[in-house]
Formats: sequence, structure tokens, C-alpha cells
Amino acid sequence: MKALVYRGKNTIKLEDKPKPEIEDPTDAIVKIVHTTICGSDLHILQGHVPTCKEGVTIGHEGVGVIDQAGDAVRGFKKGDKVLISCITSCASCPMCKKGMYSHCEKGGGWILGHTVDGTQAEYVRIKLADASLHLVPEGVDEKALVGVLAGDVTPGKSVVVVGTGPVGLAAILTAKLLSPSILIAVDKDVGRLEAAQKMGASHKINADEDVKAKVMELTDGRGCDVVIEAVGVPASFELCQDLVAFGGNIANIGVHGAPCKLHIDKLWGYNIAITMGFVNTTSTASLMKMFAAGTLDLKQLITHEFNLQKDGEQAYATFGAAAQHKALKMIMNTS
Amino acid sequence: MKALVYRGKNTIKLEDKPKPEIEDPTDAIVKIVHTTICGSDLHILQGHVPTCKEGVTIGHEGVGVIDQAGDAVRGFKKGDKVLISCITSCASCPMCKKGMYSHCEKGGGWILGHTVDGTQAEYVRIKLADASLHLVPEGVDEKALVGVLAGDVTPGKSVVVVGTGPVGLAAILTAKLLSPSILIAVDKDVGRLEAAQKMGASHKINADEDVKAKVMELTDGRGCDVVIEAVGVPASFELCQDLVAFGGNIANIGVHGAPCKLHIDKLWGYNIAITMGFVNTTSTASLMKMFAAGTLDLKQLITHEFNLQKDGEQAYATFGAAAQHKALKMIMNTS
Repeated sequence: MKALVYRGKNTIKLEDKPKPEIEDPTDAIVKIVHTTICGSDLHILQGHVPTCKEGVTIGHEGVGVIDQAGDAVRGFKKGDKVLISCITSCASCPMCKKGMYSHCEKGGGWILGHTVDGTQAEYVRIKLADASLHLVPEGVDEKALVGVLAGDVTPGKSVVVVGTGPVGLAAILTAKLLSPSILIAVDKDVGRLEAAQKMGASHKINADEDVKAKVMELTDGRGCDVVIEAVGVPASFELCQDLVAFGGNIANIGVHGAPCKLHIDKLWGYNIAITMGFVNTTSTASLMKMFAAGTLDLKQLITHEFNLQKDGEQAYATFGAAAQHKALKMIMNTS
Repeated sequence: MKALVYRGKNTIKLEDKPKPEIEDPTDAIVKIVHTTICGSDLHILQGHVPTCKEGVTIGHEGVGVIDQAGDAVRGFKKGDKVLISCITSCASCPMCKKGMYSHCEKGGGWILGHTVDGTQAEYVRIKLADASLHLVPEGVDEKALVGVLAGDVTPGKSVVVVGTGPVGLAAILTAKLLSPSILIAVDKDVGRLEAAQKMGASHKINADEDVKAKVMELTDGRGCDVVIEAVGVPASFELCQDLVAFGGNIANIGVHGAPCKLHIDKLWGYNIAITMGFVNTTSTASLMKMFAAGTLDLKQLITHEFNLQKDGEQAYATFGAAAQHKALKMIMNTS
């Protein structure tokens, strides 16, 4: 089969690999129909994820069809349409029992396309399949579902989202569900700011302007109750510290490769909380229901489609120059 | 009357000042019976609180008797025994309505002994008296109550408290109420570590040892669910980042004068929350009930007593060399 393989810094190659096989009775083999590229895949490509070794098939998002289910798999059978969770979980270790699937102690967590072969291939082996797959209801456009997994955010009253890539836009879509009084989008890519406004942002601020002054002007000098960081660089997290109101939250969803400065000398008295962590995918089922009901319009996140076996490498080139191509979510189909 | 007055960096002087008067109908004048020195008073003395100007009477903790109540004061009358809240509040502005008294928008917050004359004097004017004072029930040893106000912490399952000054010890006492599985105290002052163990810490670690290795050894390599920072220096907050478990909390109660490094490159995937903020004094009433019921033994926090009018300056010298004097909480009496 064809697979997109990480071959060291800056190199993703379309290669031939043997089709995966059931190794454990809780495994399932899924034939991929659609897969996508996540910002984390670009982090891998840039050499920022040293735990991902050369030779791994990347990708952790996907929709497909069960090709083979191990003897211990109870919830899925050959032919079922499934959404693959980016987080593999056993659902029964101490961490999973707390809903902390991302830190599963039985070999789960973020392993797909990271420490084991992932979804950017014609077939993928899914460990602990019962807890790590979701059935896709009939009639749902599974293509748009692939992007759902990142939206596990905590919305509030006055909200600012710093960074409006696909994850930031998903944060805007889901924050919008909870009717904030104001929902501000910050980015330096004009195309993405326009997309943010289409998806429900009430205001947009170009990151090259004085973002703090603009946010204060929009919030009577108080700052925002919820500040969502969706970039993953020190400057962006430090900007968030300037935008938070007394009693507010800074919700970090960006993936960071460097430490940053925490202005605790100013913030110790602000009564704020700063949260960060992997998506636990505990909201995937309800997000799928909202998508099926038409409450979440995810199709607008998809801007480009490719054929994995033919132009998978081209998909990476396009996503890597996102501003130029007005690229949000890349879909790669296998047929 | 006599008052301890801030006279610039490193100088606190016992001076004569006019007795305060009612200026607003919501004011009360309280005759101080007992007052104490807080770590924040030392911060002022060291010149780290530029918002505190020369000439201010310091102190924000105290127990006393109502000497005079303004015409609009409904809850207190001359002769009532009261606990003075370190946080002044109107109880009705938008922030107070959220329980965020420390950010009261009607002139409250931490003003006592900071921007207005405080409690280290024979008399103090308490603004917004109805919401900023608590009646002391008959029969309660009001001396020990003075230290209650700092204990507004969030305990959990495995807990480590970094810094065991009076605030850290109060955190241990209150965390103990919620029966953690393990309660570790960290400090470099051997005397304070012994006090921590007397007050309920199950383990003590000297800060000069390899704290991270010891904590991991005590928690099966997981780290602690709740990490309480009660020092207020960058090194201590950075140590806390090494001690937190997946899914845990770092609760900062230290007052910080410098920014610090946040290892978000490691912690972004830890699913943690970091909280920080002023005490809101919303738990004062229930803490007073627990003290009256004997659930909280606060008397052990008091190690030294002084007479404010005679040796108030000596109290500062003793607290400033706390390790040498095995000093925890200093009580200053007015008679």
C-alpha cells in the first residue's frame, strides 16, 4: 500500500509499505477513506517532535471503513464506517477512568502517526479499537468530520482567539455555540481573519496592530474572560497574558516547542487560571451529534482536496504555505 | 495614637498619628486588639510594592472592637468584636457579585496597609464596613483567628506544598481537612519543616535536596495532583512545574516580584491548570466556624507576641529573621 512516511527533518515521502495486520485481538485494521494534515504533522516535518522517529507513517486524523476486526473487538465489524480518534485509549486504566485519555497508561495517548504508523496511508492498524474508534452515522458527510477532533475548548463570556488556523477556527465555531457576548479573532493572515468572521467571530484584529489596545477598547478596558491560544509560539502566549481580564482564563491549545516568559509578577493577583493539555476526545461523540444535526458547519474548514496515493506530498507543500494558498484543512482521499 | 508607619525601603517607624475619623457613612472605626505581620508587609518593607507610598500605616490583618460605626453601617454597632478582612469590598459591584472581592470596583480590594492606613495601629478606619468585617462569636480565641485569612487554597489527592511559612502552613492545615493521600512539605528551614509535620504533613523534603526525585519516589513517578506554591520567587514556581502530575493543578499563592520561565514546551500536553490570584476572603466565614468548632487548630501558628505601642519595630526584626527565631506568626497586642 501507499503511505506518507516521515524521513527526517523537512522530508515526507510517499512510499510503498506492507499492509498492516492484526497483532493483538483488540486491534482493528481500518481502510482509510479520508485523512487530513494537522499542524502537529508540520511540527514533525520541521523536526520539532524528537519522539517521532524516521520511518513512521504520519497522520492521526481519519475516516475509514473497518477492513478487519480483532477477536476481542466488540463494537465494530467489517464494513463499519468509522471516525478514528487522534487519541488511542483503553478506557479503563486510572487515567482513562478520569477521562484523561490522552495520558492512557495502557499504551494509548497520542501514538498514531507519532510513535506508531498513522492514518496517512491506505490502511492503518488501530490499537484498542473499541475505545479508539467512533461509528459514523449513515448520511453524515464523513469528510467534514475529520476536523472535529481538535475543538475541545472552554468558551466563556468575552472571548478572544489568538491564531485562526484550523484549530483556532474550530475554537471559534465551538465557542460560538455558547453565545459569547464578544468573540474576537486575532491573526496576521488576512485570509484566515476573513474565514474567522464567516465562522462567527464578531471582531477581527490583525496581529501586526496593537492587539492589546484594540482588545481593551472592545472590552471597556477589562480584557477578555477567555483567552484562547491557538498558535504555539512564546510571543503568542505572552500576548495572551496581556489580554486576560481579572478572574479570566487563558486556555492554551497550541503545541509549544520552547519555554516562554510567564508574567507572574503581574498576574499573581489577577485570579486567573491557565489551562493546557492534549485534547482528550471526550467530546467527540457530542460534536458528531451536533454535526449530524447541522449545528456545526465544518465543511467550510475544508479548502483543498488531494489524492493520497498521487499527490500526498503536494498536500504538504500547500499546507506548508497556507497563507499563499488560503489553506485551512487539507483533505486527502484514497480513491 | 501609635501606628507602625512605612517610611521607605527598609524603614518601619512607630509614630504618633491622629486617631482616624468616620469620613463616609459606610465607614467604621475599629479599636485594634490584636494585629499581625504578613509576608506582604515584608515585601512592602523591602521596597517591592511601589503602590505603597511612604507615610502609610501598614498591616491588613486584625481583630478588634467597633469604636464607632457610620450612619449607613447596618451589621455592626459600638462594642462588637470583629475580624477585619484583609480585602475590603462593597459586595455589590460586578466583580464582588462574582465573589471576586479582591477586584472590587468600588474602591475595595487590597487597600488596607497598602493604599490606605492599615491595622498596625491602635485604631483603623474600615471602609465599606458591612462587607469588610466579620463578627467574632463569643468564646472564640480571637488571637488565633488573625491568621485565618490566607488559607483560601484548593486541596486535592496527592498534595505538595512548596514553602512552609505561615501561608504554606495554613495551606497544609486546610488541605489536611480534605484528607489527601499524601501531603508533602518542602522548605529549606528545618524548623518550619518540623512545624509542617506537626500540622499534618505526611512527608517533609528539605529544599536543598533533589526535591523532584524525592517527590517522584513518593508518588510512583507520577508527581502530585496539587502543587501549592507558597514562596513567591521564580525558582520556587519553576520547581513546582517539575512536581505536577498529568491532569494536576499548580495553585500559586505566593506573591511574585519577578516574571519566571514557564516550561510550556513540556507542560502543553500535561492537561494541567495553573491558578493564581488574591485571596477573595469568600471562605472566611466557614473557616471561622471550623475554628470555633475546633476543627482548625490555628494557635500553633502563633510563635511570638509583642506589644504594638512598645515593641512593634522589634516584631518586624524578629519576623525578618524568621529562621533564626523559629518565627511563624507574630501577634502584636495593643494592651
